[in-house]
Amino acid sequence: MARYIIGVDVGGTHTKVAILNLRGRIIAKDSFLTKRYKKDALIKAISSASDGLIKQNKIGKKDILGLGIGVPGLVDFKKGLVFYFVNIPGWKNAALKKKFESITGLATFVDNDVNVMALGEMTFGAGKGYANAVCLTLGTGVGGAVIIEGSLYRGSGWVAGEIGHIQLNEKGPLCNCGNSGCLEAYVGREYFLNDVRKSLKKGSGSIIGKLAKGRPRDITPELLTRAAAAGDTLAKKKWKEMGEHIGNALVGVINLLNPEVIIIGGGIAETGRFIFDPVRRTIRKRAMKVQKRTVKIVKAKLGNDAGVIGAAELVKKNIKAYRS
Amino acid sequence: MARYIIGVDVGGTHTKVAILNLRGRIIAKDSFLTKRYKKDALIKAISSASDGLIKQNKIGKKDILGLGIGVPGLVDFKKGLVFYFVNIPGWKNAALKKKFESITGLATFVDNDVNVMALGEMTFGAGKGYANAVCLTLGTGVGGAVIIEGSLYRGSGWVAGEIGHIQLNEKGPLCNCGNSGCLEAYVGREYFLNDVRKSLKKGSGSIIGKLAKGRPRDITPELLTRAAAAGDTLAKKKWKEMGEHIGNALVGVINLLNPEVIIIGGGIAETGRFIFDPVRRTIRKRAMKVQKRTVKIVKAKLGNDAGVIGAAELVKKNIKAYRS
Repeated sequence: MARYIIGVDVGGTHTKVAILNLRGRIIAKDSFLTKRYKKDALIKAISSASDGLIKQNKIGKKDILGLGIGVPGLVDFKKGLVFYFVNIPGWKNAALKKKFESITGLATFVDNDVNVMALGEMTFGAGKGYANAVCLTLGTGVGGAVIIEGSLYRGSGWVAGEIGHIQLNEKGPLCNCGNSGCLEAYVGREYFLNDVRKSLKKGSGSIIGKLAKGRPRDITPELLTRAAAAGDTLAKKKWKEMGEHIGNALVGVINLLNPEVIIIGGGIAETGRFIFDPVRRTIRKRAMKVQKRTVKIVKAKLGNDAGVIGAAELVKKNIKAYRS
Repeated sequence: MARYIIGVDVGGTHTKVAILNLRGRIIAKDSFLTKRYKKDALIKAISSASDGLIKQNKIGKKDILGLGIGVPGLVDFKKGLVFYFVNIPGWKNAALKKKFESITGLATFVDNDVNVMALGEMTFGAGKGYANAVCLTLGTGVGGAVIIEGSLYRGSGWVAGEIGHIQLNEKGPLCNCGNSGCLEAYVGREYFLNDVRKSLKKGSGSIIGKLAKGRPRDITPELLTRAAAAGDTLAKKKWKEMGEHIGNALVGVINLLNPEVIIIGGGIAETGRFIFDPVRRTIRKRAMKVQKRTVKIVKAKLGNDAGVIGAAELVKKNIKAYRS
């Protein structure tokens, strides 16, 4: 009986490789900069990191149930085909599952990073014990995943979960996706920071400019969290606006899907109550009666390890169907 | 082996009772005005209509698999409890399932009318052959139902599917649900007709006023369809606006759920291409690439019989779990 799983998290910046036990605990891990490798070299780098961990921990290959990988891109889960990576150039229609299986000899499962994060949170994190959930990740873009009756729902073309592209206004700002008024066009990292920079230009007595040493380019979400924590009115107002936009998109999701829990993760969620308070207030004020009574809004729990933990869970959830 | 099912459709105006065979074909049907009966008298009226049909068609009770009922209200499907009816006063927390089972001796299943219509359309109508679908009904209100991997998804508090209460604009017109900017606040029957009346007042050379014989109260969706068919500019514009609002709400639903099909029914959908054209155009223009390639927008097929057909399907889908 296999007792371990290899979990891989391919990020825009770092790639993490870990050995986990069947209860989702990390036994050993390794990581490297993603951009050091291109295309097939990245696959080899992951395989050898995995081989290295296996050897160092004196584990036999038979003891490994399989290999799970989360990637920042659009994935055909069944075929293990990556259509493209958002932030890693050169990839297109890569048969990742097949390539890994032929190199490692391990049953391999590939899915996009938000789905993988959602699996991890549902099994070991903030979603534990819930059947119907929605995950939202706030970062460069806005990602989402939908869990229905305990299973990840991937949609008919593998692209379900795009909460970032729910419209907030029929005539809103242009979005990267080609539409206008999408949630992401308000709260995606650069859209949000540009909006802050604009407000700063108008002059406002805010400490943000000072914290950024007069370089608007150096304004980050972390800096805005510090400003808000120090009581800065503009920073607090901008976080409040962001929370309200997120809340408004979630009102639609909650009225439509009547989930038990909404899990919010990603770098920008680290600002904590500055976002969570207005999100919760907006939902309390605007969502339908039964729906808002049913739902909890919580922060993701697994942090940086969500990717490898979720990737291991991806193997556990799918190995049975794979073998039969 | 039972060969028949009783399907009941409790509408705001008419209540329909039918005997169907296991392939969803109506063998015999009866109907009466819902408001003629109050509370328990309505239950008795349904039971005796059902008994009458059974006798007339010389069917033994053993030949009947069960009784399915669709109602215009909020239902706890598991308990068969109706929290309230939207347009039938006097009902609250009615244990409809229990009452029918004790009167008729038949296994009884109760669900809300949009869920029931969706079941009918998925099995015998416009949704046949699809696994992931969303149903939308356009009438006095805007109803919705979500089908995930072939099963009706009811949500954690039995209230999933409220497409009518997805927000179109953060600062939109007030909606009956207490929120503002909801789809229903733009395209619900009275909201829509009031908007048309307002535009008429401004003077526009439209034939709508003439068709309504100068009585704005007499303007109906059917009248507006006739005006649009006759080439009336205002009527066509108003239908186009309605279609665009519906399309915008569906863009969010499509990006989130990546369904194969959206089925649109209800009285107002009868206006046909005046709505369907702008709905499809909006989705083609605004939804995400893979999502819009995956989805079809179709009209509901079962019309007036959708309720009893779906109610019979409700029995078929759930009788096995009920017996075990």
